[in-house]
Amino acid sequence: SRLRLSGLCFLFQILNILLFAVFVRYSPEGSPGQCPWQLNCSRRIQDSGFQQPRFQDSHIQVLLSFGLLVTFLGRYGPGSAAISILIIAFAIQWALLIQGILYSFLNGKIYVGAQSMVSADFCTAAVLISTGAVLGRVNPVQMLLLALLEVILCTLNEYILLNLMGVSDSGRSLTVHTFGAYFGLMVSRVLYQPHKDKRRRQEQQDMGQQADFFAVAGTIYLWIFWPSFTSTTTVHDNAENWAVLNTYFSLVASTVATFILSPVLYEESTPRMVQIQDATLAGMAVMGMAGEMLVTPFGALIAGFLVGLISPLGFRFFTPILRSRLKIQDTCGVHNIHGLPGILGALLGTLLTLLATADTYGDR
Amino acid sequence: SRLRLSGLCFLFQILNILLFAVFVRYSPEGSPGQCPWQLNCSRRIQDSGFQQPRFQDSHIQVLLSFGLLVTFLGRYGPGSAAISILIIAFAIQWALLIQGILYSFLNGKIYVGAQSMVSADFCTAAVLISTGAVLGRVNPVQMLLLALLEVILCTLNEYILLNLMGVSDSGRSLTVHTFGAYFGLMVSRVLYQPHKDKRRRQEQQDMGQQADFFAVAGTIYLWIFWPSFTSTTTVHDNAENWAVLNTYFSLVASTVATFILSPVLYEESTPRMVQIQDATLAGMAVMGMAGEMLVTPFGALIAGFLVGLISPLGFRFFTPILRSRLKIQDTCGVHNIHGLPGILGALLGTLLTLLATADTYGDR
Amino acid sequence: SRLRLSGLCFLFQILNILLFAVFVRYSPEGSPGQCPWQLNCSRRIQDSGFQQPRFQDSHIQVLLSFGLLVTFLGRYGPGSAAISILIIAFAIQWALLIQGILYSFLNGKIYVGAQSMVSADFCTAAVLISTGAVLGRVNPVQMLLLALLEVILCTLNEYILLNLMGVSDSGRSLTVHTFGAYFGLMVSRVLYQPHKDKRRRQEQQDMGQQADFFAVAGTIYLWIFWPSFTSTTTVHDNAENWAVLNTYFSLVASTVATFILSPVLYEESTPRMVQIQDATLAGMAVMGMAGEMLVTPFGALIAGFLVGLISPLGFRFFTPILRSRLKIQDTCGVHNIHGLPGILGALLGTLLTLLATADTYGDR
Repeated sequence: SRLRLSGLCFLFQILNILLFAVFVRYSPEGSPGQCPWQLNCSRRIQDSGFQQPRFQDSHIQVLLSFGLLVTFLGRYGPGSAAISILIIAFAIQWALLIQGILYSFLNGKIYVGAQSMVSADFCTAAVLISTGAVLGRVNPVQMLLLALLEVILCTLNEYILLNLMGVSDSGRSLTVHTFGAYFGLMVSRVLYQPHKDKRRRQEQQDMGQQADFFAVAGTIYLWIFWPSFTSTTTVHDNAENWAVLNTYFSLVASTVATFILSPVLYEESTPRMVQIQDATLAGMAVMGMAGEMLVTPFGALIAGFLVGLISPLGFRFFTPILRSRLKIQDTCGVHNIHGLPGILGALLGTLLTLLATADTYGDR
Repeated sequence: SRLRLSGLCFLFQILNILLFAVFVRYSPEGSPGQCPWQLNCSRRIQDSGFQQPRFQDSHIQVLLSFGLLVTFLGRYGPGSAAISILIIAFAIQWALLIQGILYSFLNGKIYVGAQSMVSADFCTAAVLISTGAVLGRVNPVQMLLLALLEVILCTLNEYILLNLMGVSDSGRSLTVHTFGAYFGLMVSRVLYQPHKDKRRRQEQQDMGQQADFFAVAGTIYLWIFWPSFTSTTTVHDNAENWAVLNTYFSLVASTVATFILSPVLYEESTPRMVQIQDATLAGMAVMGMAGEMLVTPFGALIAGFLVGLISPLGFRFFTPILRSRLKIQDTCGVHNIHGLPGILGALLGTLLTLLATADTYGDR
Repeated sequence: SRLRLSGLCFLFQILNILLFAVFVRYSPEGSPGQCPWQLNCSRRIQDSGFQQPRFQDSHIQVLLSFGLLVTFLGRYGPGSAAISILIIAFAIQWALLIQGILYSFLNGKIYVGAQSMVSADFCTAAVLISTGAVLGRVNPVQMLLLALLEVILCTLNEYILLNLMGVSDSGRSLTVHTFGAYFGLMVSRVLYQPHKDKRRRQEQQDMGQQADFFAVAGTIYLWIFWPSFTSTTTVHDNAENWAVLNTYFSLVASTVATFILSPVLYEESTPRMVQIQDATLAGMAVMGMAGEMLVTPFGALIAGFLVGLISPLGFRFFTPILRSRLKIQDTCGVHNIHGLPGILGALLGTLLTLLATADTYGDR
């Protein structure tokens, strides 16, 4: 049984190498005649301004997944890190293949570049979020198979939402946060095992101080890198700055909200670091879609403030209901951190799109 | 009493949201007609070269505060991290408002952009430095009120020095390091409590190895990000490279100096990580003002070497005098890390400005 | 004896300052008339495109060394970090001087800039790799003297390979990884002390969980920063993107390979974090030379996969032989992590250069 994971990894990696050998080629992005084939180039901004920060773009591709990884460490310590890294290593290759078939398949070849890596990484992030819901109750082999399935569904979902329905979701409120959270919860419902969950929570409590150290590191990491990450995929060039600042305002307000609500809900004067980290994540998830649309700073402050209040309330009142009534265990509380804020962000984004009449954008 | 911090946070956050809603708007930085109003645009370099790295600039805005935060963790562990993050979240919003009134107030509106965030972040850094002097002796509510006051004073100080007196202080030796340190020491004198300090130091010693881990992380963080941070605010475009290299040379020499002096002052063969971190910080503080002015590498080496010798001497001989004679407790030793090096840096910068006659810059 | 290290540091630092004062000046890189002297400008790409990311370049200069430093923490904890930082601080100054004499010496002056710092940092990385082989068996004074010697030899080696023989080694498979590993092993042979090694390994085992934490941090750090680092020194501008993606593919495959081989070699179901970190390092070392040459993604996948299999096999079977037969102790296993992958990378690069006929590059 110890060798089953080993064998599965071997099979998958050989499969990936073969598929890459047959199908995948580098797209000649850097060369003068860009996108001369009949590829779906609309996803890449092909003006000259794009070529400049390509280093930056490809540099940033790995940040997102690891932001989440660092975050999980705050809850589970290095024991789960090894498996997370395996999931990332497999899911990125697989997502490149699956997304390539839908987006950049031409003459029997898939052309990949820095942008493909960023897309593949978004997909990996959704897989990691789902992992958060079932962590501690599934073994590594199950996790690998889960990743295999979710990458396909996530890509289909993204294709339907972004390309067929034309939704603008640059920060991926819907396709990453919400999809990842609810897919994870669905799997958690299917794999319902009441006893394992209790044992897991005990182990978790034992970690104590070490969890706090990782939560501090994860929070700092998110504050530093996430706002700029959100802005890499904005559609409007001018909106890049706004996306950064809006995300930043949102997480500031969300953090303060946690300090307000935490002493009311729990018997502690200051919130624990894990709660601050959750607030940071929630404040970012809500800005995923609306980040580039909000044209006033106080809108971001209000959105972040509300989501910073809703997320701890969800942990206190909604998660127990989820477990007892619906038989859905949510190990990391991904419903409160990614699911609810993602839905709120999508609603806000839709509202703003509807309101974006000529006179709103006229006085820019 | 547990709910007092919660209530104060609620009050401040609602106040901030209301003030933002009434006054603050995004400045149309990205749009073609930049700065068409009668704003004080001299603070922003408005040529085309500036628009390129705007992503970088706004990205970097959060680095400084967190560099300091990571640094404090080396001394106090995650217990103080939660409060530090609250202070940062509040002070950034407040500094944006206060600085906006002085610098970019027009027709009843404050226009903010990436540069405003960087300025607000400098102010937050000064608040965090002051926090270092009183940490462990004030409660969170007092800290919030302190931040409220210091942001106003820091902005006034900056306005007087940079705009009215025309001092060139791109790395903020004076306005951040020196101001933060001496404001903190002043507050520490006012709040003199001999008993609390002793208890605090005991707790600190208990942390032992964990403190070392955070000191390693903080030092690495500072080496990586600070030199490039210093260069973002240089006035002369060509001086950017020099500012990075000078800062780097300065901290290299300062680190070696700690290895020289530490075995002489203490009975250990190698300095502890916290001392190396202090040397790194001191070597950076001294380059704040002079970083873009020094035209030879050995000048930076000498300045870093001297400050690396002065800072441990201050810890050994000056801090006890401060405590016993002047009744000023300095929990983190901010006087030795930020105060003294900041003054030395300002003196060096002034000297270089006076010497900068035509023939010095002629043979560039 | 406690003051011997202190005295040596003092001597070296004063020497460095004097040499810098006499010889080193900033090169006027930013000014319009670039490289007007008869300097060896071929090493720097002097087109207009280069000036843009100079911030980035100098920013990144410190990353490499610290990546390695973080890596070592996974094995030795903060005890060795202080000495590593001293070695870095000294070796960078010394490498700037030595390399300056060979590459940019003109009219009795050495002109340094951001690129010189990057080169000096590569040299420092080689010194750190060698340190990994002898760690725990040499005292700090010996390490400093070792760094003094190795910087000179490393610069000579680099000069002969890159400038005289015209080898293209942008990611430094040969000059950093292979040279550093074998220099360290050679020193380890000279300083053979059978008893110290055993004691050291015991201490190492005692660290347990803390080592795991640092290994997680080091692995994440490498994933984030190394791929982009490799690309900064590519010769062909268009190849930058490829170098990043190839390195990334290589480390992904190498990581999966560790998961395949680890349960077979050891009695554990999942590999420990230190092993994953080793796989990450090996996957990067193999792409050093060939990273910018590989024109298909599956080539990088295969190379990474093979090296990910070879490196654990080396640890299991080759390191014991090295110790018992050749009397070479290899504390960190640098032969398996840097030596073997570096040689494989160089062989692969040479092979690709030979194969790079017109028709291979024709269908780009």
